[in-house]
Amino acid sequence: MESKHVLSADQFSLSCLVRLYQKTEKISSLLKNRQGRLLLKQVMNGRTMGLIFYQPSTRTFHHFSLAGFFLGASVGAERGVARDLPNGKVEWDLVFSSQMKGEYPEDLVRALGRYDVLVLRHHQQGFVERMADILDAFGYATHVINGGDGDGEHPSQAVVDLFTIFQCLGCVERPDFERLSSTSIAFIGDSFMGRTVHSLARLLGPLGVLMRFVSPRVLSLPEACRREFAERGFRCEYLERIDDLTPGETMFVYNTRIQVADYVWEDRAHITKLAEEYMLTQEVVRRLRFLAVMHPFPRRKELPIWLPDDPDTHEISIDRMPEAQYFRQMDLGPVVRAALLWDLVAPEIGIQDLEEAQWAESFTKQCMCGKVFSTILGWAERPQPYSRYLPKVASCPYCGPRRDGQIIHV
Amino acid sequence: MESKHVLSADQFSLSCLVRLYQKTEKISSLLKNRQGRLLLKQVMNGRTMGLIFYQPSTRTFHHFSLAGFFLGASVGAERGVARDLPNGKVEWDLVFSSQMKGEYPEDLVRALGRYDVLVLRHHQQGFVERMADILDAFGYATHVINGGDGDGEHPSQAVVDLFTIFQCLGCVERPDFERLSSTSIAFIGDSFMGRTVHSLARLLGPLGVLMRFVSPRVLSLPEACRREFAERGFRCEYLERIDDLTPGETMFVYNTRIQVADYVWEDRAHITKLAEEYMLTQEVVRRLRFLAVMHPFPRRKELPIWLPDDPDTHEISIDRMPEAQYFRQMDLGPVVRAALLWDLVAPEIGIQDLEEAQWAESFTKQCMCGKVFSTILGWAERPQPYSRYLPKVASCPYCGPRRDGQIIHV
Amino acid sequence: MESKHVLSADQFSLSCLVRLYQKTEKISSLLKNRQGRLLLKQVMNGRTMGLIFYQPSTRTFHHFSLAGFFLGASVGAERGVARDLPNGKVEWDLVFSSQMKGEYPEDLVRALGRYDVLVLRHHQQGFVERMADILDAFGYATHVINGGDGDGEHPSQAVVDLFTIFQCLGCVERPDFERLSSTSIAFIGDSFMGRTVHSLARLLGPLGVLMRFVSPRVLSLPEACRREFAERGFRCEYLERIDDLTPGETMFVYNTRIQVADYVWEDRAHITKLAEEYMLTQEVVRRLRFLAVMHPFPRRKELPIWLPDDPDTHEISIDRMPEAQYFRQMDLGPVVRAALLWDLVAPEIGIQDLEEAQWAESFTKQCMCGKVFSTILGWAERPQPYSRYLPKVASCPYCGPRRDGQIIHV
Repeated sequence: MESKHVLSADQFSLSCLVRLYQKTEKISSLLKNRQGRLLLKQVMNGRTMGLIFYQPSTRTFHHFSLAGFFLGASVGAERGVARDLPNGKVEWDLVFSSQMKGEYPEDLVRALGRYDVLVLRHHQQGFVERMADILDAFGYATHVINGGDGDGEHPSQAVVDLFTIFQCLGCVERPDFERLSSTSIAFIGDSFMGRTVHSLARLLGPLGVLMRFVSPRVLSLPEACRREFAERGFRCEYLERIDDLTPGETMFVYNTRIQVADYVWEDRAHITKLAEEYMLTQEVVRRLRFLAVMHPFPRRKELPIWLPDDPDTHEISIDRMPEAQYFRQMDLGPVVRAALLWDLVAPEIGIQDLEEAQWAESFTKQCMCGKVFSTILGWAERPQPYSRYLPKVASCPYCGPRRDGQIIHV
Repeated sequence: MESKHVLSADQFSLSCLVRLYQKTEKISSLLKNRQGRLLLKQVMNGRTMGLIFYQPSTRTFHHFSLAGFFLGASVGAERGVARDLPNGKVEWDLVFSSQMKGEYPEDLVRALGRYDVLVLRHHQQGFVERMADILDAFGYATHVINGGDGDGEHPSQAVVDLFTIFQCLGCVERPDFERLSSTSIAFIGDSFMGRTVHSLARLLGPLGVLMRFVSPRVLSLPEACRREFAERGFRCEYLERIDDLTPGETMFVYNTRIQVADYVWEDRAHITKLAEEYMLTQEVVRRLRFLAVMHPFPRRKELPIWLPDDPDTHEISIDRMPEAQYFRQMDLGPVVRAALLWDLVAPEIGIQDLEEAQWAESFTKQCMCGKVFSTILGWAERPQPYSRYLPKVASCPYCGPRRDGQIIHV
Repeated sequence: MESKHVLSADQFSLSCLVRLYQKTEKISSLLKNRQGRLLLKQVMNGRTMGLIFYQPSTRTFHHFSLAGFFLGASVGAERGVARDLPNGKVEWDLVFSSQMKGEYPEDLVRALGRYDVLVLRHHQQGFVERMADILDAFGYATHVINGGDGDGEHPSQAVVDLFTIFQCLGCVERPDFERLSSTSIAFIGDSFMGRTVHSLARLLGPLGVLMRFVSPRVLSLPEACRREFAERGFRCEYLERIDDLTPGETMFVYNTRIQVADYVWEDRAHITKLAEEYMLTQEVVRRLRFLAVMHPFPRRKELPIWLPDDPDTHEISIDRMPEAQYFRQMDLGPVVRAALLWDLVAPEIGIQDLEEAQWAESFTKQCMCGKVFSTILGWAERPQPYSRYLPKVASCPYCGPRRDGQIIHV
């Protein structure tokens, strides 16, 4: 990573994304067998990660946990719950921590400064950046990752989402700009509070992808974002209804939850009705000929679920259609996040290192003459002469024992 | 394990139980020293386990955690609490997860599908099986373990309980059917909602053990279970009072909590009185000459506790009598569960493998002639010629250096 | 450790403290690089630790977690929250455990008896000792550590605090008694309920440090403590206001929170006013010429925080003054606690062992003649002839191959 923290989707340069996705592919392949998994556990072996989540979370929490487990990190956690305040508002508290004794969050993160990396999720926009600033100001080496801050950003999710898109387009190895600039994505649902939308748009914009924001007026993209995107030359369109989309002209759909509970100031019945209007059914997906449907989850009515015992859902839900890419997107979560952690915390370990180490597993030593020895194959040639993963010896049957007074029969 | 998931006690064949208990014994012995513990940690090294507990739990939760730790797995968790609803009922919520945003449990388990094994506890009978079905239907490789589902089953506890019985009978290595068919057990307390009772009976029935269900009428074994047990030819007797047992005729007692709180529809005072009637005191145990008393815990009044500072408890509690086997039963929890995990997740690693690896720890290489080398003993004979845990060499002082152009002085 | 459990600060002999602090220094240095971290993870590899915290905690909880992670232990946790009772009092519950079904704590700790070490925090004085007694009485090998018990003690924090003081005085390696007896410390704030104060005083008293307790009358040191300290010959002074301290005569300040919430029987407004009177500002620290200010955290008003965006705090807070040693004290928490765990759970592993193992990392074998071999340096001399961390061989280029029929060319 070029920066010490992961705070915004904006910070990912294209070369950084390419490196991340190469690491993602490597991790995917290593996870497939025991040998690879043990090798992968060396990446963060001896390092610690703390997950500090003020807000509830399933995916972000467990996927970062799993990412840490994959890399061999030790993972600690502190989680919060929502409490209803007398004034009708909601407050999140880390119920088990000294926050309950009125601790400042600035002191809390300093207390956790011995973790090598902290993943923070908070209900307040800018909170995570503020904490990163405090840690930097007081000289802590801790890396901070934004796991979602209020209506702000959710950069790790955006990186997962973009990887899913790249995989669908078959351009993970190296981005195909021509292909990307002819790609279009429709963000359907809540573009107002949807922090995953804001973050993903910041990644797709610079790649030239055409973005269509399809939201009811009350949930449309905030004015500040629109202005920013326009200034940065992103290709954006703003629509109000799903039917405004021309069939066959949108490849990807990024669907988001219309969060009824969060709009306390709004008429709830109205929002519920909206959720139904923006529902993605089999009929809609077929009619508009989408290539792939994504969703950051959790979902509600806007993306009907398929349930084995409920035949009604079988008619509507797209869960079992090939266009449904959201389960794969979910499945990639821990893998892409592991790549993110790796690049942030252990950049000194390259992909080559793991490949070399994986290779070295089957051999036991190497001679100065360039041959390597396996207990099964005996001595054999190898492409490069020296590996830091194999002990070096001074003689082999091909170069003969040396008698220069230095080393014989090692 | 013959099946992908652990959902019911019914699925354990006798040969499976025998294998499980051999693994349990092996784990017990490996846990005794550092060397063995490190070896054991190889079994699930690189694998991950998620504990998703909607209901509170001490033993099942921590014993599965410990089982995972013993085997070297990385363990993540998600736990729920009970909330009082306005209608007087109780609901369990995973307070930290997106369940709080109304997530479907089907989506939740899919989000956790990257865990190699998921242990689920839920208040609803059939819930765990439903989740296993969804994961299978959508192609996840995840193993699911039922950690207790409502009034349904609690298979892992039943396997622990049966091991305790086998140990008392001295027939862990191989079940002694003659001995088992002359064994009798009395289930005293709640046979209605006691899921541990239902699960254990399903294991003991096929082994020919005589089962006496001693419960007040309101808490007697559900009609469906009675019918099922009769059809399967289990030897059952139904009694209403402890005094209906003939002294000396029952070897084992499996005592269970009379769960006052759960019977909201019942007269609470009446239930409290019941708990006292079915109390296991020193007097009862001596009079009825039980061999061993077991209890799945937590306990209430039905099994009085011994407290150092309370002399009253010293007169009543059987905690310090040799018949009290429930602490040993509790102590076996993590060990038997580790065997269960091992058999489910890493069946390719046999007991022989760990024994061989343990043996190989003291040696450093083996010659093709069949000798092995230890840094302390030098070269020595060994029973079997080759071990996959030791590097192979082509010559030793006994077979002489080979000069066939292939390998010398390895 | 000379005892099986860590229950009170009183149990630390001077020789034990010296050993602990040597281990602390060693751990500090090993944590600096990957090699050292991996080595350190061997200390508790294969061991398990359970953190059972009835009361909320940030530092003690995460610092013990981190300490366990550093040493390679597997860490499980059970945490509790406060619940308001109808009678206006507060109760702590382990919300996820069977405590919610009314489980006895004695049964709870027995259920967790398979953990090699249990760290307990509870709101009741004497609770942790009671649990240790029960485990001992029933033959469990589990080590118990007091993580804070009500108004009682907090020994691990005291050990951290003393290490910070020793470091400031530059006498970590070996305590300089002359220097210590000319040292003075002022405990400012709550000496009544401050369990960290009680524990630290028990460590400093025997070392001859002059202790000044500066508290409002309602929060002054309990009579029982005063009497005990007087009998043991500790040098104590009791003051009521900060201004009673003579400038330049107190080296260390140990500031504690005036816990408004806990004094329900008191006039809250009065306590809040007190907190302001005992506030440590830049002006106070400069005027009284303190050498170092410490605080066990969390803090409230008594030690004003520095916030980047709030210029008012820049005038008052001492956070960025060199006298502020509390962040360093906090940073040492996980390290000193790791030394404590090491000494308690793995006393058989000495500092020498880790040093030797660290040294052996760069070598691959040793000859009987006393030479060692590195793949980079070849054969070289070494101070001591044999290391248990290196395989032994029977010949090297300097002593020549042996031909006594036993071993050649190993």
